[in-house]
Amino acid sequence: MSVQETLMQKLKNDENEMIEIREYLHEHPELSFQEKNTSAYIKKYYENLDCTVTDYGDGYGFAVDIDSGKPGPKLALRADFDALAVQEDNDLPFKSQTPGVMHACGHDGHTAYMMVLAKNLIMLKDQLKGSIRILHQPAEEVSPGSAQSMIKDGCLAGVDNILGVHVMSSMPIGMIGYHHKESQTGRSNFTLTFTGKGGHASMPHLSNDAIVAGSYFVTALQTVVSRRINPFDTASVTIGSFDGVGSYNAIKESVTLKGDVRIMKEDTRKTVRQQIEQIVHGVESMFGVSAKLDYDDNYPVLYNDSQLVDQVIESLKQAKIPEIKMIEDCGPQDPSEDFAYFAQQVPSMFFYVGCQTADGANHPHHSPDFMMNEDCLIIAAKAVGTATLDYLRV
Amino acid sequence: MSVQETLMQKLKNDENEMIEIREYLHEHPELSFQEKNTSAYIKKYYENLDCTVTDYGDGYGFAVDIDSGKPGPKLALRADFDALAVQEDNDLPFKSQTPGVMHACGHDGHTAYMMVLAKNLIMLKDQLKGSIRILHQPAEEVSPGSAQSMIKDGCLAGVDNILGVHVMSSMPIGMIGYHHKESQTGRSNFTLTFTGKGGHASMPHLSNDAIVAGSYFVTALQTVVSRRINPFDTASVTIGSFDGVGSYNAIKESVTLKGDVRIMKEDTRKTVRQQIEQIVHGVESMFGVSAKLDYDDNYPVLYNDSQLVDQVIESLKQAKIPEIKMIEDCGPQDPSEDFAYFAQQVPSMFFYVGCQTADGANHPHHSPDFMMNEDCLIIAAKAVGTATLDYLRV
Amino acid sequence: MSVQETLMQKLKNDENEMIEIREYLHEHPELSFQEKNTSAYIKKYYENLDCTVTDYGDGYGFAVDIDSGKPGPKLALRADFDALAVQEDNDLPFKSQTPGVMHACGHDGHTAYMMVLAKNLIMLKDQLKGSIRILHQPAEEVSPGSAQSMIKDGCLAGVDNILGVHVMSSMPIGMIGYHHKESQTGRSNFTLTFTGKGGHASMPHLSNDAIVAGSYFVTALQTVVSRRINPFDTASVTIGSFDGVGSYNAIKESVTLKGDVRIMKEDTRKTVRQQIEQIVHGVESMFGVSAKLDYDDNYPVLYNDSQLVDQVIESLKQAKIPEIKMIEDCGPQDPSEDFAYFAQQVPSMFFYVGCQTADGANHPHHSPDFMMNEDCLIIAAKAVGTATLDYLRV
Amino acid sequence: MSVQETLMQKLKNDENEMIEIREYLHEHPELSFQEKNTSAYIKKYYENLDCTVTDYGDGYGFAVDIDSGKPGPKLALRADFDALAVQEDNDLPFKSQTPGVMHACGHDGHTAYMMVLAKNLIMLKDQLKGSIRILHQPAEEVSPGSAQSMIKDGCLAGVDNILGVHVMSSMPIGMIGYHHKESQTGRSNFTLTFTGKGGHASMPHLSNDAIVAGSYFVTALQTVVSRRINPFDTASVTIGSFDGVGSYNAIKESVTLKGDVRIMKEDTRKTVRQQIEQIVHGVESMFGVSAKLDYDDNYPVLYNDSQLVDQVIESLKQAKIPEIKMIEDCGPQDPSEDFAYFAQQVPSMFFYVGCQTADGANHPHHSPDFMMNEDCLIIAAKAVGTATLDYLRV
Repeated sequence: MSVQETLMQKLKNDENEMIEIREYLHEHPELSFQEKNTSAYIKKYYENLDCTVTDYGDGYGFAVDIDSGKPGPKLALRADFDALAVQEDNDLPFKSQTPGVMHACGHDGHTAYMMVLAKNLIMLKDQLKGSIRILHQPAEEVSPGSAQSMIKDGCLAGVDNILGVHVMSSMPIGMIGYHHKESQTGRSNFTLTFTGKGGHASMPHLSNDAIVAGSYFVTALQTVVSRRINPFDTASVTIGSFDGVGSYNAIKESVTLKGDVRIMKEDTRKTVRQQIEQIVHGVESMFGVSAKLDYDDNYPVLYNDSQLVDQVIESLKQAKIPEIKMIEDCGPQDPSEDFAYFAQQVPSMFFYVGCQTADGANHPHHSPDFMMNEDCLIIAAKAVGTATLDYLRV
Repeated sequence: MSVQETLMQKLKNDENEMIEIREYLHEHPELSFQEKNTSAYIKKYYENLDCTVTDYGDGYGFAVDIDSGKPGPKLALRADFDALAVQEDNDLPFKSQTPGVMHACGHDGHTAYMMVLAKNLIMLKDQLKGSIRILHQPAEEVSPGSAQSMIKDGCLAGVDNILGVHVMSSMPIGMIGYHHKESQTGRSNFTLTFTGKGGHASMPHLSNDAIVAGSYFVTALQTVVSRRINPFDTASVTIGSFDGVGSYNAIKESVTLKGDVRIMKEDTRKTVRQQIEQIVHGVESMFGVSAKLDYDDNYPVLYNDSQLVDQVIESLKQAKIPEIKMIEDCGPQDPSEDFAYFAQQVPSMFFYVGCQTADGANHPHHSPDFMMNEDCLIIAAKAVGTATLDYLRV
Repeated sequence: MSVQETLMQKLKNDENEMIEIREYLHEHPELSFQEKNTSAYIKKYYENLDCTVTDYGDGYGFAVDIDSGKPGPKLALRADFDALAVQEDNDLPFKSQTPGVMHACGHDGHTAYMMVLAKNLIMLKDQLKGSIRILHQPAEEVSPGSAQSMIKDGCLAGVDNILGVHVMSSMPIGMIGYHHKESQTGRSNFTLTFTGKGGHASMPHLSNDAIVAGSYFVTALQTVVSRRINPFDTASVTIGSFDGVGSYNAIKESVTLKGDVRIMKEDTRKTVRQQIEQIVHGVESMFGVSAKLDYDDNYPVLYNDSQLVDQVIESLKQAKIPEIKMIEDCGPQDPSEDFAYFAQQVPSMFFYVGCQTADGANHPHHSPDFMMNEDCLIIAAKAVGTATLDYLRV
Repeated sequence: MSVQETLMQKLKNDENEMIEIREYLHEHPELSFQEKNTSAYIKKYYENLDCTVTDYGDGYGFAVDIDSGKPGPKLALRADFDALAVQEDNDLPFKSQTPGVMHACGHDGHTAYMMVLAKNLIMLKDQLKGSIRILHQPAEEVSPGSAQSMIKDGCLAGVDNILGVHVMSSMPIGMIGYHHKESQTGRSNFTLTFTGKGGHASMPHLSNDAIVAGSYFVTALQTVVSRRINPFDTASVTIGSFDGVGSYNAIKESVTLKGDVRIMKEDTRKTVRQQIEQIVHGVESMFGVSAKLDYDDNYPVLYNDSQLVDQVIESLKQAKIPEIKMIEDCGPQDPSEDFAYFAQQVPSMFFYVGCQTADGANHPHHSPDFMMNEDCLIIAAKAVGTATLDYLRV
């Protein structure tokens, strides 16, 4: 029996373990940068295994190093483990026990399959070359997340390539989705305060109405995407928060807006920022208000290395894993990913494992009724396992 | 000595009493409809005086009836006594002792001068004809205030005319300001919610952005005043609150706006309302959002009866009161007044007594540093006293 | 028979002459600054009369001086005589014979009554003191009109007061309308060009869309009146022309807007101008376009001297002219008037003579179906004649 | 010598003829649907050649059929021949002699290379199988162009595939650009009139300002692209014309806008149209104006058949034509193409031949200084010739 056949068999045997771990994590979610128990739980799993555990970064992150003892490349595999500030609205035996916190994005599944895969890879490591570094990452859901500090701390030292996976409730079970090159949006955020002059609603000429300034800003902001961006390029600009809360009969002195920008090219990021700054200055001139703009360019565009994508996809196709029904270029995805920071450092591939429930219902990520079809766990484990074996084949 | 000379003399003698009452009230302010102690304090003053005290309305309001015992007209004099939810920012010996509540509009002064004037009118009532009804009104600062319920309860039964006074920190000491006919704005308020569809900031096409709808609404709203109102007419439309508070990366499902409308003609009130409704419907069509509009036409335009104004002003001019330096048509005033409901029922006059501090500094009404020059108290008392005597002269 | 009785009688006798002159002028209208024949026609009327005719200004304007030979004040009476670029749409025996030109504002009537009145005043001048200067003004309908150049040329030298009249199709026959102080709006105009960058409609990011800049400008402009002007004050700001004519598939490089501003106070004029300039600069910043703003403050607010108004109205009331049915303060009027320049120099009064047709139909000034009830001519003549006699009474 | 080598040689020998024809056409441009002389000139060229000329469509279009006499597929080759309403601003010996008309898009070159290529293919037809139909198309620059009527008239009867070429001044000489599937935008156009109520600028309340309505429309229109379209999809919406030409002092009764829409998917076309209709209705409600919207969905998305693209590109790569320096996927192109109608009917390929001048200067298509590097002619001929030979190889 080949090492590939052995791994597939072992993972199949351990499928229930993956499910149990996932359900345990689901029941005990922790928010980003607060995953103390989750981290301890995962580390405990590795205690008696032949591997090295090393902390990285400013949160509860760590790496698990699996060394074949033979020379060869170092492949990193990343799984995230934080949960979201969402109140679960599913009726499950393993429903979140922490009010207002929920694994509503599937990171419980990522961690569960990865732990079991890691255990099996440790058992088979003598049959491989090079080494594997499992990156158990906390704090993916916030910006800045933990990736940057883990990198700064050296978690990518010597790493040649990284793989990451996200389960996807919009894709059917059995589907592997991937894309070459730019694959998830980069993000910027900004906080913007316009300050005018408060006063009595009956005397507008003695005031300077910040709600009016903020509203015209929002309308002008639409031109950034509609007129400044190449129609063949991608950008979105959203004002997610307009805080002009006040009373009926007073003119509002100031308003604070929060903005979200998504792009697929760093050049576009610059164009959008420049245009927003220009519009902010325009509103200042136009209405005689003063503006304070805090602009934060955060998540990079997630970039998949074409050669690595081709190599992994070829491995998956050759492996003829029975649970995998289709392998498709699913195009780029709208959300941003902390993984993009890893991908800036070493050639990477981030891909998707369908986790839609059998009834095909819509359970969007980040929603209170997010639900994962647990059949995805074995698929993720087999897919990443297969890619790893092929990568480190002797 | 004529009754006029007598009253002027008595008021002068009681000036300190007015100041003491005013400072006591200032130190112990109570919010609209919560003026339990204030009401009791005022009533206590009348306990041993030859008058009748009757409660009116749904708050702590009451009337003090002073009857000459002779046939003749009934003149009402109104003074309000509620305070505002403002934290006083003056350093005074009699600074408000109630955190977050302050007599920042001068109602303490209105009540103080009126109590002392009433006492003296009671003493002189045998020299008059007809009767006087002092209306001690609570809850002027909110809508609906107490005027409507006092009226419904009969406080104007048999009343021929009413006088009211407001101290004015924008007018110098010694000034009496007045205007004929429409003298203070009428008001309407509205609460407006636009509901779209929430979603992830990176996927605007799957959502319907309520902040965008609300912002375009605000810009379109400007056309009501700029294009729909006769330039020789008066209207203001203010959005005092834009609640679109949310997060960076989610598209906002709904926003709630609060609006304030001021007009000087009931026709204009209708035009403004119709235009706002039209724009709300337009936003619904334009952006596919749904709107909920709660529109409340409240304060009427305060209307001064021209004949009564002329009569009172003539009385004041004839009286040659030394503290009154100028008597001027000051034009209409921006704020709205609960007194307007009284003026809808009987021919009325509402006028202004300058209370600017000696240094000419700006202490706007409703601001934390509102300050009253207490010299205004004797002026208000003498002016209203003079008008009353002339009105009820035998 | 008093001189007043004599004049009234003479004017009545000459009513047909007024009508004939008016109809002749109506049939032969000439545009502003092109009134060569009209001017010659009027001058010819004075040829054999005992008066002095002197040209003034850069057009066809002139004055007719009538001297009593006795010391006394000099009163000017102004009548304008230009027509409009309107194609008459009335079916009249004396319909305009000049295509596209029409006396659609009533200046034919102003001139007709004034000529006949002047003739009669000349005949009666020995019974008066002081002197009369009739100002026959061309070019009232354009800006700059002829008033300024006539003034510069000395037409007001020695003049103590001026009277002017406008017939009003919105007022019934028999009505004299007047107002004290600010009586007609002042005006400013501006021409504004925004220049961006043209290009192909399919590539907006390579262009800079001037139509977008111009449109946002128009929406922001609404805030000048809605937020910057005291609700008790008067202002209107209109974009009367938006020239962004182009083709479907090209992004427009530049647009040119024409604006009209009306105000009742010079301070408001400044505020509006400042705000417009600010918004123009804001649009430049916001959209990266360049703006060219030509701003022209032209017509002043027409200011009626209160004392003169009271004096003239008193004369009219005393005279009990049977054709005059009511004399009323009609409030300020929206349009602007070149007469305002005269009123800046000497205390003046400009008032209105109703000229509504008997059926009460709507024939607005400047419209192709403007129609004058010719009964207004004798009324205007009698009113101005009466005021003049009283003013120069021995 | 192979037929390929022979054709390449013959085309090289005829390069000057191509240039001469192109310069003749350049000197004598004709507007769309007015290309009477151009059509006659081209037809004359075929007079003594062994081919069949047949008219198609409602313009001056025609096909030239070249039959090998052997069974096999029918390949169509399309070249357009109309010019633009542009005044040439180049100083050339063969500068346009028709004022205001210019071959500013390169159709002169398309026709020139095609005529010479056709002549040579006729000479070599016995060495081929199947048949060739040259489509000489007029009226490409307008919508509707001539393609639809030519198709209706049967010009594609029996045609298996079509090739089309456009020279591209943005691509260097020696470059062949291509793209799979959606390759040029589809287009819709609309004409929109908003009608309010005219009036005097000083009385906005009596009018309904169409310029204001039109301007708010333009600002709201920006949300179609910014909020309604998937950021990964393509759409542009441009108002290319805003006709609100009027005078300073009148409020404009109506404005007429012309709009251009570009999309890459038919679904997006529907979304955009629906949103525009919604915004139009919103403006009607909001401002009480009436709208007239004429919406014309015209050019389809130009769709290149992937298999045909691969086949042609493979032919070009194999041929190792020395003048061709690079063959690249250039991505989709912004403009729309009448060729898209052909591509709706039969699997097609439309590709690009670089024609940048040697100095690399920018000479954009449709601009007065558009300039073609004539070295592109031999490249286009060789490329299309090679693809044709390979396609009809015996």
